[in-house]
Amino acid sequence: MRIAFIGLGNMGAPMAHNLLKAGHALTVFDVNAQAVGALAEAGAKAANSARDAVLECELVITMLPAAAHVRSVYLGEEGLLAALPDGAVAVDSSTIDPQTAREVAQVAAGRGIAMADAPVSGGTGGAQAGTLTFMVGATPELFNLIQPVLSDMGRNIVHCGEVGTGQVAKVCNNLLLGISMIGVAEAMALGDALGIDTKVLAGIINTSTGRCWSSDTYNPWPGIIETAPSSRGYTGGFGADLMLKDLGLATEAAKQVRQPVLLGALAQQLYQGMSQRGEGGKDFSGIIGLYRKP
Amino acid sequence: MRIAFIGLGNMGAPMAHNLLKAGHALTVFDVNAQAVGALAEAGAKAANSARDAVLECELVITMLPAAAHVRSVYLGEEGLLAALPDGAVAVDSSTIDPQTAREVAQVAAGRGIAMADAPVSGGTGGAQAGTLTFMVGATPELFNLIQPVLSDMGRNIVHCGEVGTGQVAKVCNNLLLGISMIGVAEAMALGDALGIDTKVLAGIINTSTGRCWSSDTYNPWPGIIETAPSSRGYTGGFGADLMLKDLGLATEAAKQVRQPVLLGALAQQLYQGMSQRGEGGKDFSGIIGLYRKP
Amino acid sequence: MRIAFIGLGNMGAPMAHNLLKAGHALTVFDVNAQAVGALAEAGAKAANSARDAVLECELVITMLPAAAHVRSVYLGEEGLLAALPDGAVAVDSSTIDPQTAREVAQVAAGRGIAMADAPVSGGTGGAQAGTLTFMVGATPELFNLIQPVLSDMGRNIVHCGEVGTGQVAKVCNNLLLGISMIGVAEAMALGDALGIDTKVLAGIINTSTGRCWSSDTYNPWPGIIETAPSSRGYTGGFGADLMLKDLGLATEAAKQVRQPVLLGALAQQLYQGMSQRGEGGKDFSGIIGLYRKP
Amino acid sequence: MRIAFIGLGNMGAPMAHNLLKAGHALTVFDVNAQAVGALAEAGAKAANSARDAVLECELVITMLPAAAHVRSVYLGEEGLLAALPDGAVAVDSSTIDPQTAREVAQVAAGRGIAMADAPVSGGTGGAQAGTLTFMVGATPELFNLIQPVLSDMGRNIVHCGEVGTGQVAKVCNNLLLGISMIGVAEAMALGDALGIDTKVLAGIINTSTGRCWSSDTYNPWPGIIETAPSSRGYTGGFGADLMLKDLGLATEAAKQVRQPVLLGALAQQLYQGMSQRGEGGKDFSGIIGLYRKP
Repeated sequence: MRIAFIGLGNMGAPMAHNLLKAGHALTVFDVNAQAVGALAEAGAKAANSARDAVLECELVITMLPAAAHVRSVYLGEEGLLAALPDGAVAVDSSTIDPQTAREVAQVAAGRGIAMADAPVSGGTGGAQAGTLTFMVGATPELFNLIQPVLSDMGRNIVHCGEVGTGQVAKVCNNLLLGISMIGVAEAMALGDALGIDTKVLAGIINTSTGRCWSSDTYNPWPGIIETAPSSRGYTGGFGADLMLKDLGLATEAAKQVRQPVLLGALAQQLYQGMSQRGEGGKDFSGIIGLYRKP
Repeated sequence: MRIAFIGLGNMGAPMAHNLLKAGHALTVFDVNAQAVGALAEAGAKAANSARDAVLECELVITMLPAAAHVRSVYLGEEGLLAALPDGAVAVDSSTIDPQTAREVAQVAAGRGIAMADAPVSGGTGGAQAGTLTFMVGATPELFNLIQPVLSDMGRNIVHCGEVGTGQVAKVCNNLLLGISMIGVAEAMALGDALGIDTKVLAGIINTSTGRCWSSDTYNPWPGIIETAPSSRGYTGGFGADLMLKDLGLATEAAKQVRQPVLLGALAQQLYQGMSQRGEGGKDFSGIIGLYRKP
Repeated sequence: MRIAFIGLGNMGAPMAHNLLKAGHALTVFDVNAQAVGALAEAGAKAANSARDAVLECELVITMLPAAAHVRSVYLGEEGLLAALPDGAVAVDSSTIDPQTAREVAQVAAGRGIAMADAPVSGGTGGAQAGTLTFMVGATPELFNLIQPVLSDMGRNIVHCGEVGTGQVAKVCNNLLLGISMIGVAEAMALGDALGIDTKVLAGIINTSTGRCWSSDTYNPWPGIIETAPSSRGYTGGFGADLMLKDLGLATEAAKQVRQPVLLGALAQQLYQGMSQRGEGGKDFSGIIGLYRKP
Repeated sequence: MRIAFIGLGNMGAPMAHNLLKAGHALTVFDVNAQAVGALAEAGAKAANSARDAVLECELVITMLPAAAHVRSVYLGEEGLLAALPDGAVAVDSSTIDPQTAREVAQVAAGRGIAMADAPVSGGTGGAQAGTLTFMVGATPELFNLIQPVLSDMGRNIVHCGEVGTGQVAKVCNNLLLGISMIGVAEAMALGDALGIDTKVLAGIINTSTGRCWSSDTYNPWPGIIETAPSSRGYTGGFGADLMLKDLGLATEAAKQVRQPVLLGALAQQLYQGMSQRGEGGKDFSGIIGLYRKP
């Protein structure tokens, strides 16, 4: 398939590499020329602009930092939607708010272009290993068309519903994740302060009703899970600033539909405190630092 | 074994029945004479007071509503500790604060009586089926002694550490559970408001980082889990008032050790709102009612 | 002075009338032709567009619903900044986020136009009576220039610092107001539930350390303050949806500078719950409905 | 009047001194013999026990640390209620939960002794200067009887209603105070982070709808109010641990009547964090440390 790939950052670059490995004809663009050069060396065609990259593609995939970038890349007279060939389709894998995803897709539809939102989870590790989860909002037809391509970059390709629902799924899951992690932090810190061995406590929680990913796979207390960031100084995982971004999307989306999210909003502020203290680059499980006696 | 069993309520009565079935010689007492009568019919010896019940036992098990009852049953000149035969041991399966558990055990130790705290989880269903989980705080010797007896009433007998740690484990697990359930409620309600199918959303969460017991086993959105209380009008599960009691124990224990529990305290207030509105008898997953558009 | 006034809504229209009364030569514009007609009858000159309105003015005042309107009215090739005569100055009295205020002022400065942000408090009543408070962010020179004009619409004209600080002052005050009101609601509802007469309680609070505007001037309990919205069914005051907008500005501004606002974020969600339940048009003191036993 | 005074701590000792100065015949007791000695030197009669102190009094006043002390001093066969002469009355000025106040008063009534709760505000400074505020729960007759005596120790003697309502008033006021202070801290810290001068901001708040005692009299930002603890390193005011105690009483009382207090419970946890970090002895306005960038 002739694919254009726009956005070659920490996530986008390894995703593009996996498409090359799978044999697709790839044209790439990024504002960072070095990132473009690395893909060109690996066999991709380098374009001089996003617009140029899509001129002959059947499918464009974008992986951008935020909603403002998605709007500016797709919309306007110089945007991708104005440049895409007839019959081409678009997949945006950026993590943005559902409303922007829907608005851009609506403009695309007005131009006859089918568009999907397909944010991912799995981090840079999953991007490199090709084991990402894609949460896809698209018509059934479009989903069937793009599913094989996404499978070249990920293991779990989930159809969430109409366009926008991919973002909804990601934002709702991460809202819950941000809350659960703090819940585990409070439970572990309280248990420690009350004199129970934290390994024993984690063992009980993990076989009981408190069981959750934040406890059994990613426990914030050091030494409980050897592979978790908490056991290596809260480095190398899902940064607090990234969690903060996702909770910002969740509370913003909630605001638009007047849906209260009490614990979610409070969780956002607690990660914001980490960021204020200069710990935004630490893994988000470092939130337990707020609870442990100095 | 000659066992005295004090407290024959919704939990205590079926637990006592299971001890009878296992062949123990049981003497029972409760302030409710009818409850005593039912056990007597099943083969237990009825006592006229808690004190009388323990006079010839090797082991006493208590299952009482709250810390005040535990204090008044065990302590004082008329209390069990003054009446127990030399060499007898005591197990309190009530759910109370860790500090009371430790204080009563200390008084017991002063009288030469080894005492364990062993709160349970699993509800009345688990009590009847003999599948309870016991979280036991005791010396290794005492744990070894009582473990076989507890196995006649439960499936999972966990040694949590010294006396008091059984209560700590339960209180910390339920703190996390109370938070997680609200987190799931917020995520599901937000997803619904943003237009994703709630079954699809639950499916994604359950295979992703938001995965937790409150979502994959006990989801608060009706129709997701057929066996969950949410699918039968929030009846017949773990009542909001019981969750409220446990969160009260958690925040009280946290206060004693100056351990902040931000989300936990807020969760407690939200269940308190359910109770104020007359919904304290509903399953605690009914908290989602706070979030769903009327 | 030759003044252009853009935005003739519930606030802008009476403000413009007060400028007319004070003898200024006024040219007005609004997308609502009826609003323009009413001002024209009163002696203002009607313009066909915002751009046309400013062509001969010495000062333009804008009163718009949100930041997006401010951007679209001022910026771009068709915007006011491109049309204002040399030497004219601009005052934006809309309530928007400080960052947008600063960005637009920076663009204005690039064109040689001095600009101030000057959001108001006092509501539609204050706008009609000419008793508004203006919180002004401007250079000292600009402040001195516009102060007499603002005095024709308000009683209290406060210089807060450089451009943007007017919005900062308003947003910070209303963040505190939103929190205080809920604090009073919790205190009054708790007192009532515990059996104290609410008038006595309010009297004590108002002469003690809990004293605040939300209690002594705008108490949410009905019948305490005869002139407060709570004493007339929570109508005719500062709507919950307006408070929600201001708290949204506060948490958004806090996000941009990584400043946690825990109680503020929670307060926002509680007013959002009012809005979800269809009570967004009620006065914001109606939040006490969340706390009173049904 | 023949008065017995029990509890000669930081508050009780200066209160007792003021009664002596006013000419009352005073018999005193405290477990601290030194405190008793100091009062004896000033002219009081020293008793060997609380019981002995009241044997010939017309009025007993108690000033004790917590509800447990009040129960143990008044109740039981060795308690004051069993020892007070016929016709004597009792005033408890301790700050405790309303329910204990009511229960002890009910036992007193059963013995024919009229009892009032009369917690104070004003701190040790007010106790020494005789300018305390007394919040009194009592029958009108009892209030009239004790009002002149309380006036010898305080300036503002408020009748709150039946017994218990003095505690209710104090607990509700301090719940609001604990919330307001955090609200002011969030507003001031946000304003500073957004670039407004904090003195200007405080000035605006103090003449606007955010106005409150925590801002205009006790502002947590250093240098705004010269006489506030914030301007002298958060020393010498109302300690965070005392605020924590009062918020504990508020949330406990709320629990008993199933009244949710969301912001109040969260505030309690934030002061608990101060206490955990070893800052419980600092003035409670030091909570702003949680919000200021390090």
